[in-house]
Amino acid sequence: MNGQPCLNPELASPTHFATSALSKPGNTSKNAFGFSVILTTNQNLPGHRTQGLSMARVDIAPDGLVPPHAHPRASEVTTCLKGDILVGFVDTSNTMYTQRLRPGESFVFPKGLIHFLYNVDSKSPALAISGLSSENPGTQVVPTATFTSKPPMPDRVLEKAFMIDGQEVARIRNHLQG
Amino acid sequence: MNGQPCLNPELASPTHFATSALSKPGNTSKNAFGFSVILTTNQNLPGHRTQGLSMARVDIAPDGLVPPHAHPRASEVTTCLKGDILVGFVDTSNTMYTQRLRPGESFVFPKGLIHFLYNVDSKSPALAISGLSSENPGTQVVPTATFTSKPPMPDRVLEKAFMIDGQEVARIRNHLQG
Amino acid sequence: MNGQPCLNPELASPTHFATSALSKPGNTSKNAFGFSVILTTNQNLPGHRTQGLSMARVDIAPDGLVPPHAHPRASEVTTCLKGDILVGFVDTSNTMYTQRLRPGESFVFPKGLIHFLYNVDSKSPALAISGLSSENPGTQVVPTATFTSKPPMPDRVLEKAFMIDGQEVARIRNHLQG
Amino acid sequence: MNGQPCLNPELASPTHFATSALSKPGNTSKNAFGFSVILTTNQNLPGHRTQGLSMARVDIAPDGLVPPHAHPRASEVTTCLKGDILVGFVDTSNTMYTQRLRPGESFVFPKGLIHFLYNVDSKSPALAISGLSSENPGTQVVPTATFTSKPPMPDRVLEKAFMIDGQEVARIRNHLQG
Amino acid sequence: MNGQPCLNPELASPTHFATSALSKPGNTSKNAFGFSVILTTNQNLPGHRTQGLSMARVDIAPDGLVPPHAHPRASEVTTCLKGDILVGFVDTSNTMYTQRLRPGESFVFPKGLIHFLYNVDSKSPALAISGLSSENPGTQVVPTATFTSKPPMPDRVLEKAFMIDGQEVARIRNHLQG
Amino acid sequence: MNGQPCLNPELASPTHFATSALSKPGNTSKNAFGFSVILTTNQNLPGHRTQGLSMARVDIAPDGLVPPHAHPRASEVTTCLKGDILVGFVDTSNTMYTQRLRPGESFVFPKGLIHFLYNVDSKSPALAISGLSSENPGTQVVPTATFTSKPPMPDRVLEKAFMIDGQEVARIRNHLQG
Repeated sequence: MNGQPCLNPELASPTHFATSALSKPGNTSKNAFGFSVILTTNQNLPGHRTQGLSMARVDIAPDGLVPPHAHPRASEVTTCLKGDILVGFVDTSNTMYTQRLRPGESFVFPKGLIHFLYNVDSKSPALAISGLSSENPGTQVVPTATFTSKPPMPDRVLEKAFMIDGQEVARIRNHLQG
Repeated sequence: MNGQPCLNPELASPTHFATSALSKPGNTSKNAFGFSVILTTNQNLPGHRTQGLSMARVDIAPDGLVPPHAHPRASEVTTCLKGDILVGFVDTSNTMYTQRLRPGESFVFPKGLIHFLYNVDSKSPALAISGLSSENPGTQVVPTATFTSKPPMPDRVLEKAFMIDGQEVARIRNHLQG
Repeated sequence: MNGQPCLNPELASPTHFATSALSKPGNTSKNAFGFSVILTTNQNLPGHRTQGLSMARVDIAPDGLVPPHAHPRASEVTTCLKGDILVGFVDTSNTMYTQRLRPGESFVFPKGLIHFLYNVDSKSPALAISGLSSENPGTQVVPTATFTSKPPMPDRVLEKAFMIDGQEVARIRNHLQG
Repeated sequence: MNGQPCLNPELASPTHFATSALSKPGNTSKNAFGFSVILTTNQNLPGHRTQGLSMARVDIAPDGLVPPHAHPRASEVTTCLKGDILVGFVDTSNTMYTQRLRPGESFVFPKGLIHFLYNVDSKSPALAISGLSSENPGTQVVPTATFTSKPPMPDRVLEKAFMIDGQEVARIRNHLQG
Repeated sequence: MNGQPCLNPELASPTHFATSALSKPGNTSKNAFGFSVILTTNQNLPGHRTQGLSMARVDIAPDGLVPPHAHPRASEVTTCLKGDILVGFVDTSNTMYTQRLRPGESFVFPKGLIHFLYNVDSKSPALAISGLSSENPGTQVVPTATFTSKPPMPDRVLEKAFMIDGQEVARIRNHLQG
Repeated sequence: MNGQPCLNPELASPTHFATSALSKPGNTSKNAFGFSVILTTNQNLPGHRTQGLSMARVDIAPDGLVPPHAHPRASEVTTCLKGDILVGFVDTSNTMYTQRLRPGESFVFPKGLIHFLYNVDSKSPALAISGLSSENPGTQVVPTATFTSKPPMPDRVLEKAFMIDGQEVARIRNHLQG
């Protein structure tokens, strides 16, 4: 996949297959959306190299949102552990599939499709745990990939894409850049 | 991939491996963005079942845009045949890669990443031909997947995602729905 | 993979992508080992067809064991949600890798290798959630696959394999058959 | 695939995803068959590493031939851009599928099968563009792989294979070596 | 791969996983080259559906030849069991790799490349057994795929490809058609 | 797969694609079970890197056993060359499939499942040759992976798994360690 070989079995130790990366709540105030995603990676969990999956801990502040995003290299099954989460994805026919998840309930986000998770509870945080079908799923958050990439996507492209004028492009970009 | 078997070799004829689907310019006035994409599919080209690739003809009107979109199941190499096309994609670190393509020049859109093609010439149409690494690449156009899916993504999600208010959500949605 | 096509998009509904299969504790007294594993499947979660992953809820009674087993088609990352679980796997050089997992801690079981989970707490049940890199991982429990398959593996094979005599084969088989 | 990792994202620049390799007609007089194939590669287009596809520009002189050949690692869809090209492939039941392609018409060469492209116009060059389902498709030209490999295939093998005598083997080899 | 599902486990019996297809010498006088290849298939060995490999028994008459051929979907490792076999393949740089195999010696034919096996002993038959990396490898025999496909490849293509005249094309074709 | 690139074509020689590793009987008295398996590997056969298959020579002493084992990365087709071999595998529904193989007869061991080969002849050695669907199949022998891994699996786990007491665990372990 990425040119990194498996662990050399002679150097592997049990700790290479264990991680406490998901053990503590993520900081949901680091971004304005109010969410945190912590993923197992080949760095924090060397033993999952070449294994083709990863796990993620998703914390969402009250009324917080994991904004519409896609994983170019993974499908995802998420299981709600705490709270009340509205989830949804849009397929390639532009149909949206949405559900409200309570603890223990699971939902599939098919590979590469735009999806979101919204904590509909304005008072309590929500928690979900996800399996992803790649050890390196990658993530593109739709509003930031379009409005605040570096360098920025040309205004003309965004104006025509969202059918807004240059001032609105600038306003959205500014808000998103915090 | 999709449960459709290969062609039964006893029923296959040369015409199953040939198509003129890409031979005529697409109608770029069918959508407000000013583009047309025609793809070889297992329907118009039955012989490409199980072959893992497809070809696309991309016509773009003067000043027209193939809006930011992603193919959940394919990477793409596009070759400009006519005109002057500004292309770009955003990677999972939110870096944008952009180029101006003149006839004969090619560009890679890595698998599953958001990309666009903009005809910078306001007088002449542009034409590109693309190879895609799946016989069924799928496409999600970012502005329509977010603002005009059916049923619609909840306003609250779009307000928080793009940091706009409900009126702006409604305005963008209306514009995009034409 | 298994000849089952994707969901027909025209018949898909949001409920095809949602399941509450993992929401309730499994019955750990159905077997003598004291464990229950509930998996998302193409039956209880039709939307995960072709997505290449599944999720499992693992309940283990106090002092209960998920006995040494392997998934022929999947690697696994397990995250402890409750309790104190001793986990381990053996690699193809016959080295064992083992860890004690407390809530929030995760462990990798590489593809196809024999592994176990043991609830070291003799008073409280344990709970883990796992992602698996196949929508149909399959499971072979080592003691039952060897001693209580139907029809049974020949005594001579088991005697020589485990270097025990026929009476011991019969005794182990009887115990395992309950 | 080949041990080359992806581009290091920190070193990638937009030019790594762009190439003008296909922009100019190839030199069809470099070989006696009268064709030129220029391919995007991981060298001239570093960004297509790991993307699983490539594009090719195929120029054929008047009455020129891309001789029967196969790509061991790729299927191909070719689109005629100029001229009048007779294409064909042979399947594993020894059935030949052939078509005449005019500009805009496309044809599939299934993975690994022997195929050819012949410019039936004795006055004008032909041009086609192809997508291939591998970033490193490889090519074996049947007459040169059999008659002019280095070292050569033993005469006895060629005599028996084509049911010709040693003089004919020598004559064909000499012609093909120019 | 080919739309055929796995065996329904409820209908599977041990005989679905066993075959004596390779137990008897093939008839090497059915073709003028003097060889016979018998392959395990999803028909004679239903249990190897979806398993991604097959086995072949290769019998070669004294001075017989398995003519240059390629498997579009498989690499092959062949092990000589009897006799004295000259084997070789040509790579995509037109280099030939050749060896003489005595009983117990093995040789690799990389995926999709043209290769041959020649029994250099003019008095005794030879026998080899091969593993192939597909349950449906497919075979294209170079001389027959080029000269005796149905319908035939156009004479003009063969004349230019092998640099021979129309009479030689006809002669080779006639010989190969027996 | 394992970070090792293909052979550099400029350094490859015919001997990289040939091996006599399988030419001589293995030493079946090196272990107490009475078997020997010799495999083609990327070390003894560098040319099979990236080719996705390997071959194995299986020698079994009279009354010897290849004990229940699984290959985490490969399915296998074995062909009996000499002797009288009882083979079997257990599927994920705990059904055993078993057959008696005489020379020329073949049997499939599906990917990752526990299987065994037992030489039922108490006087003559048996010989089989297998194809495996990976260049690095890996092997876990069930009794040794469970009872004699290093470090050992905890007694408590083995007692509960096989429903035996600590003395029996110690006795089996001692026998297996020879």
